[in-house]
Amino acid sequence: MGTSLALALRGKCSAVHGVDPNPEARAAAAFAFDTLHADLESAAPTAQVIILAAPVRAILKLIPAAAAYAQPGTLILDLGSTKRAVVHALDALPDHLLAVGGHPMCGKATNGAEAAEDTLFQDCTFVLCPTARTTPEALAAARQIVRLCGGRPLLVEAEAHDRAVAVISHTAYLLSAAYMDTVRVEAAEQGELVWELAASGFRDMTRLSGGGVEMLHDVLLENRAMISATLTLFEMRLSYLRNLLERGQEARLRTEMERIQGLRRDWERRKQS
Amino acid sequence: MGTSLALALRGKCSAVHGVDPNPEARAAAAFAFDTLHADLESAAPTAQVIILAAPVRAILKLIPAAAAYAQPGTLILDLGSTKRAVVHALDALPDHLLAVGGHPMCGKATNGAEAAEDTLFQDCTFVLCPTARTTPEALAAARQIVRLCGGRPLLVEAEAHDRAVAVISHTAYLLSAAYMDTVRVEAAEQGELVWELAASGFRDMTRLSGGGVEMLHDVLLENRAMISATLTLFEMRLSYLRNLLERGQEARLRTEMERIQGLRRDWERRKQS
Repeated sequence: MGTSLALALRGKCSAVHGVDPNPEARAAAAFAFDTLHADLESAAPTAQVIILAAPVRAILKLIPAAAAYAQPGTLILDLGSTKRAVVHALDALPDHLLAVGGHPMCGKATNGAEAAEDTLFQDCTFVLCPTARTTPEALAAARQIVRLCGGRPLLVEAEAHDRAVAVISHTAYLLSAAYMDTVRVEAAEQGELVWELAASGFRDMTRLSGGGVEMLHDVLLENRAMISATLTLFEMRLSYLRNLLERGQEARLRTEMERIQGLRRDWERRKQS
Repeated sequence: MGTSLALALRGKCSAVHGVDPNPEARAAAAFAFDTLHADLESAAPTAQVIILAAPVRAILKLIPAAAAYAQPGTLILDLGSTKRAVVHALDALPDHLLAVGGHPMCGKATNGAEAAEDTLFQDCTFVLCPTARTTPEALAAARQIVRLCGGRPLLVEAEAHDRAVAVISHTAYLLSAAYMDTVRVEAAEQGELVWELAASGFRDMTRLSGGGVEMLHDVLLENRAMISATLTLFEMRLSYLRNLLERGQEARLRTEMERIQGLRRDWERRKQS
């Protein structure tokens, strides 16, 4: 994500410097940055904007480190997938720093600099969350960064963001993983046929389960209360449909599945328009 | 499906005739067939092969109708999404007819002749199920039809097929629908933000729920015992992951999610090779 952002911003600002303690990661990302540094200490003092791209709990550790080396007036922006804890940490920054929480609603199944794309943010909704350190100028600068990399900035409170992504993303990840694991158990019993018949439906339903545990592990734990509430709701909806099926309530099952089909088609139409 | 198959076979056999009682459906599909008929009575007597493309329970009604008008030696092949009930019905055909059950493992979210594609079967696994009316010649003919339209024939017993698709397809459809409906409830509570943040994960997880109820309704009801067994297993797997999350068992949750990520990545690798 960090390397994709560097690619998207390069040439649109005076310089893009990268920081990664891992020498191999630096070597792999070198093509995307003007300079690369092993620590914030050497890169932060000259930065106008510090963008923290890492799993959420790593970001929480990086915020005080960035603050220690940043010049007054520096804007700190993060790309963490949950926002309450991050915004809470940004709220606590010293008065001479500016901060905006961020979460670009784009991603890919593969991580690392090799998978970076300068078009990753193109047309993607890029959430910006206000903090106690968000002045109108800080927000304007964050919006400009989002637009420079092709995204659409959307101002959202951290709490509302976390509730929405619990539904739209984190719950989906857990369901995808539970389904993938279900197929494994059945394939162990039934044999290779299960894999041979797996087609586009299986592919789509399990895609998220193949995604980066590295990022999502923090996300699950940070957002667990909201995910848990959504799972309770999901279990109720599934159990309702399952009951209609098992009791052979054909007419009602059809009505429900048509209603749900309509919801999905409406979403697709709105998305296209 | 029927129109796509007609497009894929046209020019590779002497003629492709279509049957549909609905005049509008006939008009829409006219481009794909040599002739179109309102009933089996007028088309079946000259056919060497009769292919039944319809929802499963419609196929069950079409089998005796096709048998009534088919000449001796005619091969009846169906494209139904579950196979036990269909094969049972094909078993009961008179001795002078041949029959093979079929299920191409491909599909699309949109139905109807307008959505037909001559490449739909390209490289898709096309299940063939033996029946009491499957001679070696009948099977060879069915395999040839599959290959002519670009598919890969795979001989599978009806029972094994239905168990496997319960896991790989039908359960996925119900999970996708239950998840779509969960998002609706949450969006009603949280507001438009949920829809605004919906990205590729949501799109993939809900795609099946927007698919054709027409076809899938029969499938759910025909295969409900096996779907139900898979749902029980799914609920166990989900509940296991959910418990690890809610209890904050971080190390074990990470291990499990990494294991599942590995399963998905292995599948993708095998699929590509």
